[in-house]
This record gives sequence, structure tokens and C-alpha cells, in this order.
Amino acid sequence: MVPSSSSTSKTEVSYAEALEHLQDDLNAVEEALTTHLNSDVPLIPSIGHYLARGGGKRIRPTLVLLSSKLCGYEGDRCITNSCLVEFIHTATLLHDDVVDASEMRRGAPSANARWGNEASVLVGDYLFAKSLWLMASDGDPDILRVVSNATVFLSEGEVLQLINEYNLASTEESYLDVIYRKTAALMATCCRIGAILGNMPREVEEQLGEIGSNIGSAFQLVDDALDYMARADRIGKPVGQDLSDGNVTLPLIHLYSSADEGERRRIRQVFFESNGTPDGKLDDILDMMKKHGAIEYTLSRAADFVERAKASLRELPDDMDPFYRNALIALADYIVKRDH
Amino acid sequence: MVPSSSSTSKTEVSYAEALEHLQDDLNAVEEALTTHLNSDVPLIPSIGHYLARGGGKRIRPTLVLLSSKLCGYEGDRCITNSCLVEFIHTATLLHDDVVDASEMRRGAPSANARWGNEASVLVGDYLFAKSLWLMASDGDPDILRVVSNATVFLSEGEVLQLINEYNLASTEESYLDVIYRKTAALMATCCRIGAILGNMPREVEEQLGEIGSNIGSAFQLVDDALDYMARADRIGKPVGQDLSDGNVTLPLIHLYSSADEGERRRIRQVFFESNGTPDGKLDDILDMMKKHGAIEYTLSRAADFVERAKASLRELPDDMDPFYRNALIALADYIVKRDH
Repeated sequence: MVPSSSSTSKTEVSYAEALEHLQDDLNAVEEALTTHLNSDVPLIPSIGHYLARGGGKRIRPTLVLLSSKLCGYEGDRCITNSCLVEFIHTATLLHDDVVDASEMRRGAPSANARWGNEASVLVGDYLFAKSLWLMASDGDPDILRVVSNATVFLSEGEVLQLINEYNLASTEESYLDVIYRKTAALMATCCRIGAILGNMPREVEEQLGEIGSNIGSAFQLVDDALDYMARADRIGKPVGQDLSDGNVTLPLIHLYSSADEGERRRIRQVFFESNGTPDGKLDDILDMMKKHGAIEYTLSRAADFVERAKASLRELPDDMDPFYRNALIALADYIVKRDH
Repeated sequence: MVPSSSSTSKTEVSYAEALEHLQDDLNAVEEALTTHLNSDVPLIPSIGHYLARGGGKRIRPTLVLLSSKLCGYEGDRCITNSCLVEFIHTATLLHDDVVDASEMRRGAPSANARWGNEASVLVGDYLFAKSLWLMASDGDPDILRVVSNATVFLSEGEVLQLINEYNLASTEESYLDVIYRKTAALMATCCRIGAILGNMPREVEEQLGEIGSNIGSAFQLVDDALDYMARADRIGKPVGQDLSDGNVTLPLIHLYSSADEGERRRIRQVFFESNGTPDGKLDDILDMMKKHGAIEYTLSRAADFVERAKASLRELPDDMDPFYRNALIALADYIVKRDH
């Protein structure tokens, strides 16, 4: 359980070992998430705890914890900061589900399906306000700087995604820009927070930001691939959800750009049908994706980002703790290997 | 135009004179609002400028400007801070209109009616993120403290209001709590920002916060009275909007608690009708409000808050600039005298 502190250790760490090592901290994060949802306004704890109990992978807190410890930070500010990035993320999920009119999230009814769009919008705002409040309590101007940059990117990414809805002419480049803003920027910030807590020079903060960004882009690419491949009981929402939401992600962009004219016509027919996507039609899309290797292509792009993150992790200063460096490498690998 | 700097001056200032005196600063605020909406994401400047051009009374920026100058602050940070509180306010309006499914705002189609709920939710998030970003650029931990407190109250107030929808058993006390959170807390913060910019002791910050809070509660009370009294061409939205939204405000609370059993039955019938409030029925409610003095009562409560604010303004340290003190008194008076 105690990490080796020899800087030359090359011992591999599995993601399970990394999580086990962080168990106490992750439990403290769960506790903080619950504590900071204890508003005296009734609906807020109900929805908040519903979301908190719903789980999620807590990738962002894990990034904050691993990066802080990698940078030699030993205090408990990493708990508050984990909590605040998870609140920002959860606020986005709440608003996302309203925008997409999603009915399911993580295998359970989404908050908007259960409490209505109004409550989801407002409790999302509360979570965002609470994350601001946590930053004010923590009082670190550098953390405010990186988090505020990320939230601007995040909201821009969400708006861009909305603008690009049903746009089959979307390019891979514009897609990568959207996922950078809506996912990678916040994960980059999680890693930057670690550098800031560990009092690292700005250069290391930038390097860690780059690593978090690559992990974030890989994460979103895999999410978008899973949407077309996973069984509903794994990802907790129907397969092909992005298709029925008009959300044009890389599997579809790759398929549409590789398809012949007849296939394109079929894709357009399915895509612009007004009443969701009937199962038979989804199968046709999935078959075409198979034929053109759209999922494989998406996953290979994710693997590229993961490789870039791992290479940068290996290039970090030699004296940084090898256990946490290897744990971050394990997290990067987990991103592409997960099936939900 | 130049304010008297004699501390014993009792010269009255009209609200028009105060605004005229602030004209350059208010213009700079408008410019800042436009500048900070210049995202490279297309929809954001469109909606943002639509809202900015739509105007509004800019009460919050005016409070920031008058309080800062009252506290002897002479720099231009009051512009950025005016901009950030106005962004927070505008974000709330966007989300409010989604929650209430409002079609009109300030005499023009609301943003959600024009661009859809999705865009309104996400551009609201952008405005909130941008206000965070402006705080990070400004870099004052005290401003972060007061703004973060206000945003938590604000979002709680919105959720409370949602919970209380269609609740005719709402009390005046719970109503005053809602309006403190959703309106007064942010106006209190505007005044606190002035004290912080002017490097005033914490005690003066608290006093100014109390003044802003009383002005804010008065403002919301008058808004809620105007909803039942103003002509649509003045307030830019239909009369009785709160009634059809199920939003239980003081005029209705006062009416319901004063009404006899027969009147209560009529109120319930109108209130719980599913298809909005037909004109004839609204007239019945308005007649009952007249009979029971519901509007007068609401306005008298507003006047109480204004008097409290004015008394506190007179109790501020003697050496504070009398022009700005009188300008704030004029603003407090304007709150209850306005007809839109």
C-alpha cells in the first residue's frame, strides 16, 4: 500500500491498485460531496444525493488526487478541490440531460426525468455556485484561474455541440475542438490543480495540464465509441443515444465521410427521422460503422491521445514520485480499456 | 456634475442626476458587457448581445458604482465588477425564463422563445462561467467571498421558489426568505463590492451589505406588485404572469390570507386552472386584490425596506462622500416610485 519512494522504480501499477491506494481519500471525497450538498432547501439534498449515490467513475477527483500526490502535496485541500471539480462536472451533466431530454443516466432515471427540467436547471446552478463557494473557501487564486478558464471552455463546448447538432458536415477537427472544450479542459484543470497544490513551477503545471487534456480527449472519444457499441446494462443508457439526440460524434463523422452515396442517403434518412431511431435502422447504421471501421478508428484516435499522455508522464521531472506517475499511466490505460 | 465633497452637505440628489453623473461609467459597463461576450462560439455573442441590447435597468451595476465611489474608490475595477454581477443576474434571467417557460422579457421575445430552452440553459452557463473568469482576472479574494455567498443564496432562492409554486399556503415569512435569497443577496453583494474596492473596514462592508439587501428586497416586492398592476407595454410582459406561472408572491399571499371562504374558492379555481389565466378570471383576482388592499400592502412593505435602507445610509460614517450617499438614497426612492 505504501508507494515506493525510489525515483528510479519502474514498477507497474494497476488501476485497481491505484484506486485501492486512494481509497481513504476517495471516501473523504464522497463524504465532502454529501456534506456540501446539505442545503436547508429541501430539493437540493434530494437531487444532489440521488446524483451522488448514482456514482460515476470519479475520474476527475482521481485525477486531482493522483496529480497532487505526484507533486508531493500531502494536505487535505485535494479533497475540497476534488469535490469542486466533481460539482462542476455534475452540474454539466444535469444541464446536458435537460438539453438532450435524456431519460436515463447511469442505469437509472435521469434527474430531469424524475424531478423535471426546471429542478435540474436550478440544482445544476446550485452545484456550480457551490463549487465557486468552495473555491472561495480554499482561497487559492491560481486554482481560481485554472478552474475559471475550464468552465468558460466547458460552457463554450456545450454551446458548440448544440450548434453542431444534426450537422453531418461536421469535421473531425471541429469535433476534436468540441471535446477539448467540453471534456478535456476540465480534466486538464484537475491535473493543473495537483501541480498548484504541490507548489510546482508553472512549467510542470503546463505539462500536467497537457497530460490531463490528452486523457480527457481520450476519455470522450471512448465514451462516444461506447455509445455505439456497449450494451445498455453497461453504460446505463440506450445504445445509439447520440444518434437519436442528433449529436454528431466521431464514429458518425468517420462513417459519413467514408460512406458511398447510397449509404449516405440511408444515414441521412435515419438521422433526420423525427421519432427517434427505430431499432432496425440503428442496426443498419451499426453495420455500416462495422464495414467502414468507424468504431475502431475512433478507438485508435483515443489510443493516440493516451499514448501522448503516457509519453508526457514519462517525461516529467525524474524526482517525482514513481508510484503516482505509474498510477496516472494506469489511469490513462484504463480510459481506453474500460467497457462502460 | 462634480459632486460636492463637503461632508456636511445635505443637498438632495435626484436619481436622474445620479445616473447622469455615472454616465461615463455606465457606458464603460455597457462596453465591457459587449466585450466579454465576444466568444468565438457563434451563438454566444448573438444571444448575449440580444440580451445586452434588451437593456434592463442596470440596477446592480449602478449599486456597484455608487457604493465604490461612496467608499472613495477611484479606479476602473468597478467596471469589471459591475459587468460580472450583471452577467450573474442575466444568467439567472435566462434560466428563470426556461423554468417559467416565459415568452416575453422586457417587451421582446425571451431568449428561450427565440433560440430554444437548450441555448438559454447553456448560454446562461456561459455567462456564469464568464463571471467566474472575470473574478479570477480581478483576483480579489474578498470579492470572490461575497459573490460566491450570493450565488449560493441566489440558486437556493430559485429552487425555493420552484418548490413553493402553486403553494397558496406560503407565508409572508417564507416569501421574504425567497426574495432575500433570489434578489436581495446579490444586491447586498453589489454594495459590499463597493466597500471592498474602497478598502473599507469589514464593519462598513456589513453596513453596506445590509443597505443593498434592503434595497433588493424592496425592489423584488415592487416587481411582484407591478406584475399585478402595470400595463404590459410598461413592464414588457403580460399582467398577472406570476399568477399563470404558479408563482406565489406577496400580493397573492396577502389576498389569500385576507379572503373569505367563498373568495378563496374562486382564487383556487383560477389558480389551478390548467390553461393559463383567462382575462375575465384575472380581473376577478385583481378586483379581490383591490378590495383587500393586496397591492397597497405589498408596496407598503417595500416602502418599509426602503426606509430601512435610507436610515442606514444616513448612519454611515460622516466622512463618506455626501453626493454618493444621497445618490444611493435617490436610488432607494426610485425603487418604490418606478412604474416598470
